[in-house]
Amino acid sequence: MENNLPLKTPLIYSDVLSTQFNAKIYLKCENLQRTNSFKIRGASHFVYKHLESNKHVKGFCTHSSGNHGKALAYVCKTLGIACQIVVPNNAPKFKVNAMQALGATLTFSKSDTKNRLAEIAKIEATGFVQVPPYNHNWIMEGQSHVAKEIFDVLPNIDGIICPIGGGGLSGGTVKYLNKIQSSCKLILAEPEWANESYRSLNTNTLQENIRFDSIADGLRANLGDKNFEVLQTYKNLECICCSEKEIAEHSLKVLNQEKLLIETSSATVFAALQKLPFNIENQTWVLIISGGNLDPTTII
Amino acid sequence: MENNLPLKTPLIYSDVLSTQFNAKIYLKCENLQRTNSFKIRGASHFVYKHLESNKHVKGFCTHSSGNHGKALAYVCKTLGIACQIVVPNNAPKFKVNAMQALGATLTFSKSDTKNRLAEIAKIEATGFVQVPPYNHNWIMEGQSHVAKEIFDVLPNIDGIICPIGGGGLSGGTVKYLNKIQSSCKLILAEPEWANESYRSLNTNTLQENIRFDSIADGLRANLGDKNFEVLQTYKNLECICCSEKEIAEHSLKVLNQEKLLIETSSATVFAALQKLPFNIENQTWVLIISGGNLDPTTII
Repeated sequence: MENNLPLKTPLIYSDVLSTQFNAKIYLKCENLQRTNSFKIRGASHFVYKHLESNKHVKGFCTHSSGNHGKALAYVCKTLGIACQIVVPNNAPKFKVNAMQALGATLTFSKSDTKNRLAEIAKIEATGFVQVPPYNHNWIMEGQSHVAKEIFDVLPNIDGIICPIGGGGLSGGTVKYLNKIQSSCKLILAEPEWANESYRSLNTNTLQENIRFDSIADGLRANLGDKNFEVLQTYKNLECICCSEKEIAEHSLKVLNQEKLLIETSSATVFAALQKLPFNIENQTWVLIISGGNLDPTTII
Repeated sequence: MENNLPLKTPLIYSDVLSTQFNAKIYLKCENLQRTNSFKIRGASHFVYKHLESNKHVKGFCTHSSGNHGKALAYVCKTLGIACQIVVPNNAPKFKVNAMQALGATLTFSKSDTKNRLAEIAKIEATGFVQVPPYNHNWIMEGQSHVAKEIFDVLPNIDGIICPIGGGGLSGGTVKYLNKIQSSCKLILAEPEWANESYRSLNTNTLQENIRFDSIADGLRANLGDKNFEVLQTYKNLECICCSEKEIAEHSLKVLNQEKLLIETSSATVFAALQKLPFNIENQTWVLIISGGNLDPTTII
């Protein structure tokens, strides 16, 4: 069974940012991905891998504030398999509606990781297979195709800016960079209000978030231990934290300037670009837009 | 002197529309073009052609509700040449600001063609060279690169939907279709409130607009006589008119569904797609998004 659910997404040249930095800056547009985020890459890869050795599955389940859930709901719908999702009660209504529209059954929980996991355990106990949002090798393998597609088009880039939440996309990116032995700079863009990756990488010890209410709703989850391990294998890596104000401002700015609707989690990479502590003149950089699931009325 | 001002714009696969029509539907994204519309193709082509045989020019001028003026202002700024633009007094403020930001000198006029032309004649009398918005062979030649780039990627398409205002983009498209002897279907999407092209093509006589206040501000101008002549050479062509309501609805729908900010003029092609009087199942179609110069607060 071939997994052709994820689309190859466009890598768009940003004239405005390239002019500003006197550099070549491209946008990897996972907001234009099927289900409008990169999450379908990992979710479909996991489901197809699982089905290779398990033909009969009662259903798949997960916990998600929206994008991973929407992706898994889409994959399950395509395959005609039941899907249950644990949703934190502060997830955007917009994303909740999208998951329901794809036929998933939702259960609401408190927004911290402990509560999410307690709810998902109950569903697993009924025979559903959990598709973890990020903390699994198959998930990172699936997400690594974002980096692969970037390098297929631009083999000689100097840097990538990638948002970091649980570490699925960034872990997948590191996996690919290691595979091709790239030494390109990897900047991880993170909200100050969910800066456990910054703290984990700087202390070499896995840390947890203290609050779970950043405007960048896709980046509220705690960094996974498997993801952390993968990130630690890459040396040319740096975490840049952005304020809530910076994230909100860039959500609207990108809409007006780049003509792309991006979600707040993706606005972090644009905010981080403006705060790079080094000069990128004449270099080629790629900003990963992780998703576009945003109700535009919330930023205008 | 090489004209490398226009960017090669992305041709994006629309998963949602392709699923809806059980077809392959792509979006040619001139909203992601430099100055955010296709207009820089014609404007830069005209200016460079003119400068080939006239080294010393006092300045360039034009009349425009926004996009052509913004494009010409950009070209002139790049070359360090003066630029004057006659702007109809009902042009969107958003576009007016953009032209001013690029250093152009603006003169305001009433919105009908007669008044626009009277104002531009005064500026020409001072030694400025007019760069017509659409009614000129060089302009159509420049705009024809949109179709060229489409066919470079997708040589076997069944149809194109293109917005029609003065006929620069559509005329350029026909020129290219004729050049490669394509028999692909060409749908011209036009506002009901500015349907002079529909009437012209159906009566084989050039008609004029009765009103100049369609929400699709880029399509309010009258069809040019040179553009009309070119359009008449292509047989597999049809005009579909859209209501103001349809245009407004699709502006917002495209933002939410395709994650792209498009201007109201471009929403006509999405509205026309929904009204095609024939089945396009299993076919490959391209929708030309002419521009993205829109203040999103006006549609939300």
